[in-house]
Amino acid sequence: MRILVTNCNTTVAMTREIAAGARAAASAGTVIVPLTPAWGPESAEGWLDSYLSAAAVLDTLRVHDAAAPEPYHAVVMAGFGEHGREGVRELLDVPVVDITEAAAHLACLLGRRYGVITTLERSRPLIEDSLRTAGVAANCAAVVATGLGVLELDEGPATTAAFLDAARRARDAGAEVLVLGCAGMTGLKELRDHVATELGLPVVDGVAAAVQLAESVVRLGLRTSRSGSYAALRDKRRVWGATG
Amino acid sequence: MRILVTNCNTTVAMTREIAAGARAAASAGTVIVPLTPAWGPESAEGWLDSYLSAAAVLDTLRVHDAAAPEPYHAVVMAGFGEHGREGVRELLDVPVVDITEAAAHLACLLGRRYGVITTLERSRPLIEDSLRTAGVAANCAAVVATGLGVLELDEGPATTAAFLDAARRARDAGAEVLVLGCAGMTGLKELRDHVATELGLPVVDGVAAAVQLAESVVRLGLRTSRSGSYAALRDKRRVWGATG
Amino acid sequence: MRILVTNCNTTVAMTREIAAGARAAASAGTVIVPLTPAWGPESAEGWLDSYLSAAAVLDTLRVHDAAAPEPYHAVVMAGFGEHGREGVRELLDVPVVDITEAAAHLACLLGRRYGVITTLERSRPLIEDSLRTAGVAANCAAVVATGLGVLELDEGPATTAAFLDAARRARDAGAEVLVLGCAGMTGLKELRDHVATELGLPVVDGVAAAVQLAESVVRLGLRTSRSGSYAALRDKRRVWGATG
Amino acid sequence: MRILVTNCNTTVAMTREIAAGARAAASAGTVIVPLTPAWGPESAEGWLDSYLSAAAVLDTLRVHDAAAPEPYHAVVMAGFGEHGREGVRELLDVPVVDITEAAAHLACLLGRRYGVITTLERSRPLIEDSLRTAGVAANCAAVVATGLGVLELDEGPATTAAFLDAARRARDAGAEVLVLGCAGMTGLKELRDHVATELGLPVVDGVAAAVQLAESVVRLGLRTSRSGSYAALRDKRRVWGATG
Amino acid sequence: MRILVTNCNTTVAMTREIAAGARAAASAGTVIVPLTPAWGPESAEGWLDSYLSAAAVLDTLRVHDAAAPEPYHAVVMAGFGEHGREGVRELLDVPVVDITEAAAHLACLLGRRYGVITTLERSRPLIEDSLRTAGVAANCAAVVATGLGVLELDEGPATTAAFLDAARRARDAGAEVLVLGCAGMTGLKELRDHVATELGLPVVDGVAAAVQLAESVVRLGLRTSRSGSYAALRDKRRVWGATG
Amino acid sequence: MRILVTNCNTTVAMTREIAAGARAAASAGTVIVPLTPAWGPESAEGWLDSYLSAAAVLDTLRVHDAAAPEPYHAVVMAGFGEHGREGVRELLDVPVVDITEAAAHLACLLGRRYGVITTLERSRPLIEDSLRTAGVAANCAAVVATGLGVLELDEGPATTAAFLDAARRARDAGAEVLVLGCAGMTGLKELRDHVATELGLPVVDGVAAAVQLAESVVRLGLRTSRSGSYAALRDKRRVWGATG
Repeated sequence: MRILVTNCNTTVAMTREIAAGARAAASAGTVIVPLTPAWGPESAEGWLDSYLSAAAVLDTLRVHDAAAPEPYHAVVMAGFGEHGREGVRELLDVPVVDITEAAAHLACLLGRRYGVITTLERSRPLIEDSLRTAGVAANCAAVVATGLGVLELDEGPATTAAFLDAARRARDAGAEVLVLGCAGMTGLKELRDHVATELGLPVVDGVAAAVQLAESVVRLGLRTSRSGSYAALRDKRRVWGATG
Repeated sequence: MRILVTNCNTTVAMTREIAAGARAAASAGTVIVPLTPAWGPESAEGWLDSYLSAAAVLDTLRVHDAAAPEPYHAVVMAGFGEHGREGVRELLDVPVVDITEAAAHLACLLGRRYGVITTLERSRPLIEDSLRTAGVAANCAAVVATGLGVLELDEGPATTAAFLDAARRARDAGAEVLVLGCAGMTGLKELRDHVATELGLPVVDGVAAAVQLAESVVRLGLRTSRSGSYAALRDKRRVWGATG
Repeated sequence: MRILVTNCNTTVAMTREIAAGARAAASAGTVIVPLTPAWGPESAEGWLDSYLSAAAVLDTLRVHDAAAPEPYHAVVMAGFGEHGREGVRELLDVPVVDITEAAAHLACLLGRRYGVITTLERSRPLIEDSLRTAGVAANCAAVVATGLGVLELDEGPATTAAFLDAARRARDAGAEVLVLGCAGMTGLKELRDHVATELGLPVVDGVAAAVQLAESVVRLGLRTSRSGSYAALRDKRRVWGATG
Repeated sequence: MRILVTNCNTTVAMTREIAAGARAAASAGTVIVPLTPAWGPESAEGWLDSYLSAAAVLDTLRVHDAAAPEPYHAVVMAGFGEHGREGVRELLDVPVVDITEAAAHLACLLGRRYGVITTLERSRPLIEDSLRTAGVAANCAAVVATGLGVLELDEGPATTAAFLDAARRARDAGAEVLVLGCAGMTGLKELRDHVATELGLPVVDGVAAAVQLAESVVRLGLRTSRSGSYAALRDKRRVWGATG
Repeated sequence: MRILVTNCNTTVAMTREIAAGARAAASAGTVIVPLTPAWGPESAEGWLDSYLSAAAVLDTLRVHDAAAPEPYHAVVMAGFGEHGREGVRELLDVPVVDITEAAAHLACLLGRRYGVITTLERSRPLIEDSLRTAGVAANCAAVVATGLGVLELDEGPATTAAFLDAARRARDAGAEVLVLGCAGMTGLKELRDHVATELGLPVVDGVAAAVQLAESVVRLGLRTSRSGSYAALRDKRRVWGATG
Repeated sequence: MRILVTNCNTTVAMTREIAAGARAAASAGTVIVPLTPAWGPESAEGWLDSYLSAAAVLDTLRVHDAAAPEPYHAVVMAGFGEHGREGVRELLDVPVVDITEAAAHLACLLGRRYGVITTLERSRPLIEDSLRTAGVAANCAAVVATGLGVLELDEGPATTAAFLDAARRARDAGAEVLVLGCAGMTGLKELRDHVATELGLPVVDGVAAAVQLAESVVRLGLRTSRSGSYAALRDKRRVWGATG
């Protein structure tokens, strides 16, 4: 099985980390095909970035799809809380799984309430809205920001302290499971293990969760419904980016 | 006062109709500055179109803003149910009003429940989500599709019949006020009056409502909050559309 | 355009402040006609006062309407969180805007969540219920009481301190915009500016918001729906207050 | 035990029926003291009537309370969906039970969802709001109007047919229990039995339910909380009805 | 009238306390018939205990019902937050009242929001879900745990301190009325009075509330609906517990 | 990997079908270990059956767990809408996935709204409550009953007609994806394909979905949270079924 995993921003180093996280989570026989959008923001932090990212990811998939040398069986969208998911479902015939919803789906199986640890406070509303639209917000106890930008994440002491603090606030709000609320956190393995041990809570990574869910949907032969919301696109004139 | 009114698609004839609707609703002394996105879909019908439109509108405003010969005092976004609203609030310093929310805000003042008459069934979920995010979904009784595409709207008998049928379904679902759920309906004045008379319900046009609300916010000296969701944008590398 | 602005209590000094606030917000050409109820409580603080106020305002409008020397085009009800709004919509043919809903409608345009600063804790439930019924509660982050009675409001240091404290609690609960939750606050211009500056949040006054919305509805030729909730009154015997 | 049962309108014949219904439901040893408001509407149908009724009932209880020859232990408010309940809780020291909430409380014990059969369509929103405020709306499947005015109710064939039709619509919406949604229905014993038999559903009368709940609260020595919403009234100047 | 009151666990001393509480709340002429399940957990604390208790109570009632020397008129289920309620409604022809819902129903009459004081944190989710299913969760401000196990409850200083602390947290969350969230609290009369006095809030005991509600339903001749959720059981093979 | 799949009733033929469905969905290398409860109902249809089933499944797992010759890595609970899920999470150390939630989780990835086709009308409320508790009810458009009992399901024309009718009602209520709402439907492969083709909607089987999700959770090394709701069981005396 081949799964296309799209970063939502143009930072190639992050695409690499996401691909590594996806590969670590994939079953034997699954090939992860990473994709960096051809344009867009270098990191998605807030509404404008998220809308820019959505169009860039759609455009890149559209072009890639036309030119793809080999077929792929599913798409994983690796932008936590970012827009675009529903548009990709209209665009492509293969199943589409977004890391935001994926993490929440698995978290719901592990505890009665989950909490999301994310980057900046300005990402919180996007994540809340994305979970709600995906139908998995009901058991979300809290989305808590660490105050760190997407490209500032590392495994140093400041990040660790910010994570532990955010995780404790999520737990105090009722979270029994933690969700890593940024694609850029998929590579912070030591940090994640540290938080899990310190708080005694399972920690779900969205990239890993989405790869597993994408595999599941493919294995069961399921596809996106073409009746209703995700009906096939209408033919029309669309221009993707200003000309010259 | 100058209000920039952006179409959400690239169809210039529609921009013209929107501008006419906006001018008809504007107070004396208000100048309507119409804007057609430099790129995007020729009509927005569904998720992919909406995300493409959002990025195109943001890019066009961004470039326009840098180059604007005269300042404007507010922006009206004339895409019913389309994405982008929150991003424009981050981007610009002037107040931003979207026609979706604007129609709903005024409709709430006129009856206990309102209903939206829109174009295609595939636009319904976008409108529902947009109303919910804007905080005005609670009193929406129904969003009903006529089955007509954005560019198929006219004042002929087929459109009229489809409108009356949709309006009756909205009323049967509890609507006491009707909202025109497409920017392209702003010019259908006779049709609107016919439906209003036939059903005995007030009909709210989003373009007109948004112009009035934008004027109100400007007159009261209010501006978008920069604390929280709509904080000023972070400086970063953003590429708007593929090169070459 | 003539807008009738009703105080919800019998304190004439407060009617004067409300009228001043309304006039400051009105467009050129709009005449504000203030009205003090012929009976009722001297301030509305809690359920009993609110119900008493509702009947008194309805009675006063009923009598005034019969006797009015000149027509008016809309009514603004200046009691924050007070009952009566829907009854006035049944009673009168002109549009009716309540300051509670009006402030919330405009606040929704300025931030993702708003908070209300009000007087006594006992007014909080009324405001919460009023926002919910009006269909604009979804984005209300908190209603916070200052602990000051309606007639105790001034611009002294105690009021200022109480306001700042309440405003901070609203912001900590997620409010990105503040709403002044009492008609008696419309005159506290310095205090409002101080809070806005101190917290960096826009502050919406319900009286001003309602005047603007009333003007908008009138300008667009919209009227209250007579289908459903606000159908014209049935003829019947009604006695307004005990006889002798 | 003495329970004061207030009609919400000025129609004495209806007070008599309500008193009869209350007596039929009361335990041995409970004395029902009926009360007709000194002023107000002859029937409450819609918002204006309901607000007028609320003030009239409050005023009548206030005067009655001062002048009462013998103490009473609880108040039952016999207006289905009418306002005033919370104000009476502020005004009086004895427990207060409204027939709207009472019927819903008991109905919840008898089936998973209940439906309310009421008079005019215009009463539906008031009932929905009243159930929501009372905290018992979650299991309400539907409020269905018969189209009959309060003073048109009888046990003739037209009423019966309208009732059966409304009851079937409620059942089709999921109701497993029916609630009589008007105080004036308490006397329609044959009609109620007919509907119950025909549809095979239990039918709850609000007057009877409220008397039982009032007795329960009194027997258990419980009283309205004075902390928060229903704190004792503040001393102030209140005028109940226009002078002269 | 005879009311069967079932403990939800096998601790006979607790059945005795529950019976005493039920008798203290019953009207003259009501006979309380206590019942201890023939099997199950010695205390119900968490999901597994609750499901075990549900089956055990159902089995005991089933056997008891077949063998009962005298008929009873209603069943009170005395397990706060425990499962089984809806199954008993299917099983038996007499009305069934659960102490969880009963306490909430009466509490809603006494204040705008109520709070539940319970034993262990692990009981909180069960109580929240039970209130929601019963349709009375809307006005629940908080369920707060004391940290004490069901069989550790007494009237010593540690329990008192834990109770006061939990009660204060409930009040701070908006509770105007307190509910005792464990059947084993029905006997803690002094403690309850102490908390009520200290905080100035009414305190509702579920056992007492359920007895009163059961009496009410019986007096009014109401029975569980057999249409829909609680239809009579289908005949089939059921084995109640493993054969040796 | 070994996954224990428990039937929720005592009908061995149904356990066999469930096991076949599970095996068809499992990845290479996954061993499905079927389990029939040692006691309980022959089919679970309604509340009493569901509670009986919950205790029987818990008891069987408890005994089986003690006696298990080889460890297993996850448990799938194959009762659609039945109780017990949360108790099994307390009891066992391995991850637990219930087919109700599993089907809903995958369905949410395939369309904006899903609908459940189930057996008897009396199963509907249990399914609705189970989805809500699992946190995935928000995007459920409808649960529709075919009117067929669990043991009456086959692939004959009557079942097919009932299925198609129920599926159409779900689609008309907004479902874009269908979920098979009974473990006994896992074997109806032809019927399922027929419905999927006829309506053009994807159809999700809960048994298959749960096996895939269980595999995912195990592969990612995730486990049920022991903090909060699913804390390890307290030691206490528990009796599982009446003695002699």
